[in-house]
Amino acid sequence: MKLSNIGEFGLIHAIQKLSVRRSPDTMIGIGDDAAVLKLSPSVLLLASTDMLIEGVHFDLSFTDYYSLGWKSAAVNLSDIAAMGGTPRFCLTSLALPAHIAVEAVKEYYRGFNGLIRKHKTALVGGDTCSSKDRLVISVTVLGEAKQPVTRTGAKQGDRIFVTGTLGDSGAGLELLKSGAAGKDPKAKNNTPRSDIEKLVGKHLRPSPRVEWGSQIARSGCASSMIDVSDGLSSDLFHLCEESRVGAVLRSDALPISGSFLKSAYRLQRSPLHYVLSGGEDYELLFTVPLARMKRVEAFTFPVTEIGMITGGHKMVLMDAAGRKTAIRPTGYNHFSRIGNCAKQTL
Amino acid sequence: MKLSNIGEFGLIHAIQKLSVRRSPDTMIGIGDDAAVLKLSPSVLLLASTDMLIEGVHFDLSFTDYYSLGWKSAAVNLSDIAAMGGTPRFCLTSLALPAHIAVEAVKEYYRGFNGLIRKHKTALVGGDTCSSKDRLVISVTVLGEAKQPVTRTGAKQGDRIFVTGTLGDSGAGLELLKSGAAGKDPKAKNNTPRSDIEKLVGKHLRPSPRVEWGSQIARSGCASSMIDVSDGLSSDLFHLCEESRVGAVLRSDALPISGSFLKSAYRLQRSPLHYVLSGGEDYELLFTVPLARMKRVEAFTFPVTEIGMITGGHKMVLMDAAGRKTAIRPTGYNHFSRIGNCAKQTL
Repeated sequence: MKLSNIGEFGLIHAIQKLSVRRSPDTMIGIGDDAAVLKLSPSVLLLASTDMLIEGVHFDLSFTDYYSLGWKSAAVNLSDIAAMGGTPRFCLTSLALPAHIAVEAVKEYYRGFNGLIRKHKTALVGGDTCSSKDRLVISVTVLGEAKQPVTRTGAKQGDRIFVTGTLGDSGAGLELLKSGAAGKDPKAKNNTPRSDIEKLVGKHLRPSPRVEWGSQIARSGCASSMIDVSDGLSSDLFHLCEESRVGAVLRSDALPISGSFLKSAYRLQRSPLHYVLSGGEDYELLFTVPLARMKRVEAFTFPVTEIGMITGGHKMVLMDAAGRKTAIRPTGYNHFSRIGNCAKQTL
Repeated sequence: MKLSNIGEFGLIHAIQKLSVRRSPDTMIGIGDDAAVLKLSPSVLLLASTDMLIEGVHFDLSFTDYYSLGWKSAAVNLSDIAAMGGTPRFCLTSLALPAHIAVEAVKEYYRGFNGLIRKHKTALVGGDTCSSKDRLVISVTVLGEAKQPVTRTGAKQGDRIFVTGTLGDSGAGLELLKSGAAGKDPKAKNNTPRSDIEKLVGKHLRPSPRVEWGSQIARSGCASSMIDVSDGLSSDLFHLCEESRVGAVLRSDALPISGSFLKSAYRLQRSPLHYVLSGGEDYELLFTVPLARMKRVEAFTFPVTEIGMITGGHKMVLMDAAGRKTAIRPTGYNHFSRIGNCAKQTL
């Protein structure tokens, strides 16, 4: 059987089956944003790892090495943020094609360290080796959490919230691909450069919501949480699957940025496409029981109520007039030509 | 500047410089077999990661997927063993080309789990993604140690010991490459198949010396320790560099197996080549001060005294007649055409 027959999701389930034999110290293993491991009665360790391959996850004609280092770290810190944890240590491995200059590799580490130091996290190890052709990056992040917030606690009636805005990163990537963000002076450019730069910046150097995730966890408001890495539709789908619930999203409530709004006419698809499926926003999606809604009001960072958890297993988008459309997870899915499911932390 | 100009060693030093800013909780960062991290007053966490690339670290025409999974785990558990620690948790990421069958991926995980379960270690996470062409594997292992044994404590006069035998894995790889270990009935085969199988087995499914490393650490005998992954000459070089000492090895004392001895005439190079530079033995190399030699005698596993730590920075090989030859590290070095240094955990 080929990988494309079962898709990434099917593969992860197969691996899960082969690996189940949880030790009493594995509080959460495969299937959430990070593993939760009990090292001593007082320490809950979070561990997460991500791999990034040239030509699959990034394109060296769009990104500089500093941004690549930054983003490799961001993707991983975001997994810790999604558990409400605090990142502490990172390890990063690089497989390097011979043509890459030493200065480029140093820039990668400058970008990597540039982000993790903002979060008081130390690079403590890794591996470097040669690669025949493509640059390959692997990052592992270790963190701590007193009370990790998982994907499994959402209940019917809980309200759905998201931090920040959605769709910027996907729009930024398209602007990079179309050349609008490039340095070509012939490229038509009707969108103010600062807006394009903001969107591209969100794509190349995303900000993992570490402090916000930590505040959400400390407040005790959230019944479940996940980061928006594959796209809202896919990540909400993962959260619903793990919590065995459905969801209704209000299309008029989905938060978008001013820069996105002003650039929308330059994009190939409708704004909703980028918001639902653009991916790589690295915002936090979390659910809150009605009884704890007051705690959300106390947050000083941008957070928007976008819908509600329902019974059943369906995801529905409702517009201002009350019209409903089914949503399918449409984010990035490795191994499958049909985008019916998306990356899930193994 | 190209990577081949500074070599892997130079690159690691450059990364180390960019990353130094150790937190008080980073007991040991970049530069040893594993990082040592203080999570709470009572818990010392060990963390190590390795990347394996098809065409660089393994060849799918020589290995089956079960062995590949096993070895990916073994390489990492060996890093924990080299610190005298106990492995607890693993994460493994795979970048998979579309042509790989689901069954092959399952075999990989069966092999991986097959080894780590022997060591009461749990697979708790990872990442799966698509790769354009080559299979890429990244493994992170987390462990614990009460009293980690580092590379930095060797002192002049300490005796040098190694567990098990050396050269088997390198010989096994050459037998695989030459076709002697293949299933071709036309292949000339004067060496008893069981010996070839033993050598090939050491190459494809090495046994990380977890229990032995733990006993060495518990005994308190060792002033320093490293695993033999790149080859005796390279790994002794790393240990000497980190401890700022030199070493003299006795060529007649180097332990080789009966299977290696019987197969030596089939190999292209002298036995000493495989023993010093073959690599991937995953035995433990450690140093013992004279005052603690009694503790080594109590070990019930195979261990051989092979030389002595000296002042200065030179490594010397001495034969039975007392003739001395300088040894240079000749194990595998990514990025450099001249084998002047070798893989070091970043």
